[in-house]
Amino acid sequence: MVADPLNTTMEDVVLFTSSDPLIFQSGERLSHVQVRYETYGTLNADKSNAIFVCHALTGDAHASGVRPGKDKPGWWDTLIGPGKPVDTDSFFVICPNILGGCQGTTGPGSINPATGASYGLDFPTLDMQDFVTVHRRLLAHLGIDTLLGCLGGSLGGMQVLQWVLNAPQDMGSALIIAASSRLTAQNIAFSAVAREAIMRDQGFSDGHYLEAGTTPDTGMSIARMMAHITYTSEGALWDKFGREPQNSDLSGDFGVDFAIESYLQHQAETFLDRFDALSYLYLSRVMDYFDPFGSDDSCKLIRANPVDTLVCSFSSDWRFSPRASKRIATRLERAGVPVTYQEIRAGVGHDSFLLEIPEYLELIRRFLNHRLEVIS
Amino acid sequence: MVADPLNTTMEDVVLFTSSDPLIFQSGERLSHVQVRYETYGTLNADKSNAIFVCHALTGDAHASGVRPGKDKPGWWDTLIGPGKPVDTDSFFVICPNILGGCQGTTGPGSINPATGASYGLDFPTLDMQDFVTVHRRLLAHLGIDTLLGCLGGSLGGMQVLQWVLNAPQDMGSALIIAASSRLTAQNIAFSAVAREAIMRDQGFSDGHYLEAGTTPDTGMSIARMMAHITYTSEGALWDKFGREPQNSDLSGDFGVDFAIESYLQHQAETFLDRFDALSYLYLSRVMDYFDPFGSDDSCKLIRANPVDTLVCSFSSDWRFSPRASKRIATRLERAGVPVTYQEIRAGVGHDSFLLEIPEYLELIRRFLNHRLEVIS
Repeated sequence: MVADPLNTTMEDVVLFTSSDPLIFQSGERLSHVQVRYETYGTLNADKSNAIFVCHALTGDAHASGVRPGKDKPGWWDTLIGPGKPVDTDSFFVICPNILGGCQGTTGPGSINPATGASYGLDFPTLDMQDFVTVHRRLLAHLGIDTLLGCLGGSLGGMQVLQWVLNAPQDMGSALIIAASSRLTAQNIAFSAVAREAIMRDQGFSDGHYLEAGTTPDTGMSIARMMAHITYTSEGALWDKFGREPQNSDLSGDFGVDFAIESYLQHQAETFLDRFDALSYLYLSRVMDYFDPFGSDDSCKLIRANPVDTLVCSFSSDWRFSPRASKRIATRLERAGVPVTYQEIRAGVGHDSFLLEIPEYLELIRRFLNHRLEVIS
Repeated sequence: MVADPLNTTMEDVVLFTSSDPLIFQSGERLSHVQVRYETYGTLNADKSNAIFVCHALTGDAHASGVRPGKDKPGWWDTLIGPGKPVDTDSFFVICPNILGGCQGTTGPGSINPATGASYGLDFPTLDMQDFVTVHRRLLAHLGIDTLLGCLGGSLGGMQVLQWVLNAPQDMGSALIIAASSRLTAQNIAFSAVAREAIMRDQGFSDGHYLEAGTTPDTGMSIARMMAHITYTSEGALWDKFGREPQNSDLSGDFGVDFAIESYLQHQAETFLDRFDALSYLYLSRVMDYFDPFGSDDSCKLIRANPVDTLVCSFSSDWRFSPRASKRIATRLERAGVPVTYQEIRAGVGHDSFLLEIPEYLELIRRFLNHRLEVIS
């Protein structure tokens, strides 16, 4: 365990073993599942101030603050930290890396103890509920019965939704940000193109690239560049890049001529350093399949145990649009859940949920402070 | 020359030769340029009933009717034909394949007489004005002084805009459909990803794939799948595919599970049969650079010779949005050009311009019939 002046820790913990394996929704099993998680702040004596944070597709456990040896703050540093809306002077914040990921928690790139090689495409098919299974085990490991709040954006928000439907008794409140309860055909289409780019890259080596010593860099670059376009908005790209040339003269060839092209290349390059192709495939596919309200009794448990829920969307988000968030709110309201729905005016598209937007930060702060008052 | 009962012809004609080369805007030259074009209907005695049609990025000379041995009608068969809005019983319609294309007109895949091999990346850099140069030469070849109308959609509309700015005296009217006078950063971004996918495909062989006997099928598939998403709309994809599975059970792997995925794969496969990677690079790049109103004197000629212009957009087109079309209309109006601007309510996005939408067809019909009255 590493402690630092900001009162944070990072830890790897084995949560499932051969005698107590992780059983996936698919029926498959893993006999060794490790989870990397970080915490911020201090758990109070009655363990009532914990907030669980679920990250998005390519996020990790490092949500807040600057780790020793790193130069970039955590991905949700706008929201989480001392004095911030998720105030680590008041709350104890837990953020694990996701099952199937590539940043410390067991995923397709991990070593399969049975073979000594990485799982690759033998990693079990993932379902949103499998994330919840692992998150709940981490909670038990930490000895926490009830979360003050469970918070996530994008794929993180989907995990929160699944969790509050499966086990509402685990939390006093749920915060579902920039999420969707089911992907549209357009969403699936973009994901399909990304997967196609990765899997058809010769470096993918049929999923055995770790053993083959290759990497599907082209496919991953294409996937990231395209995804990045969908994470922002037309207006934000225009405001930032317009038609600015990257160099004083256009080259006339097919390289980088415009500033937007250079930016996308940069996005692709930094992505290769930090993300794994198989994790991308597995995690993106979970989102395609996700459709919790598709089953009739999806709201049975939350109906019996309504959880205060905040659903928040961003006006320019065309990946998971306000309409998608509104659908979540409506479905929960119909089940008798007290829902606060708020659309934040923001120009930067889906990625707005990561940004410092005063109205948004204030919304989260007020919602959580209200929870603090309720329990105290 | 091939004649058929519908009174159409297809012809290949050499328009530039070593003694009279095509001089590109870049200063480069080609000593042999052939153009394939089709015509529909009959040119009248005073050659006053000609309508010139410019096609979009992946279009070709075959705009109308079903050619012998083919099963699909031309790409603008909704609009062009006997009794249709561009009525080939009244008009003589000319549609050439574009310079730099791959369907009969000289392009990067053509043989360079100087080397005996294909031009590949040695093909000159293209500018929108180069298309106009070739179109005008075709007009001269046909002995036509003045077009009744010049009509195009998407990249075709951009050609019309460039032409009417460069040589308004060539036409009595201009019809600019679903076009833009300058790509947005988002437009360029999507194009950049497509080019990246093509050029990084090992089968691209640095542009010498024809000689290498390889093909950048993966890159072209990715480019087409992604582009197709941007040619339609979220709503249209949802209406057509929703979250329908392709098979009775989801496979759980990363293949085709949803109907939308199968559809995209089909789009990619048929595209490989009909389009060339280098043409894709060259033609898409022309669009990125296109910005005719970027120069102060762009409207000098049309101001002196105002041409009746119709600018038409489609409400759900997010590739070249109504705003982009409106900008064209506004700029032309400011130059004193009589402009009819119409936004058509249509749900299928950019590709709406190819569809049978009554309000749209009626708009074209009325505009052209009015031109007929003006000249008779």
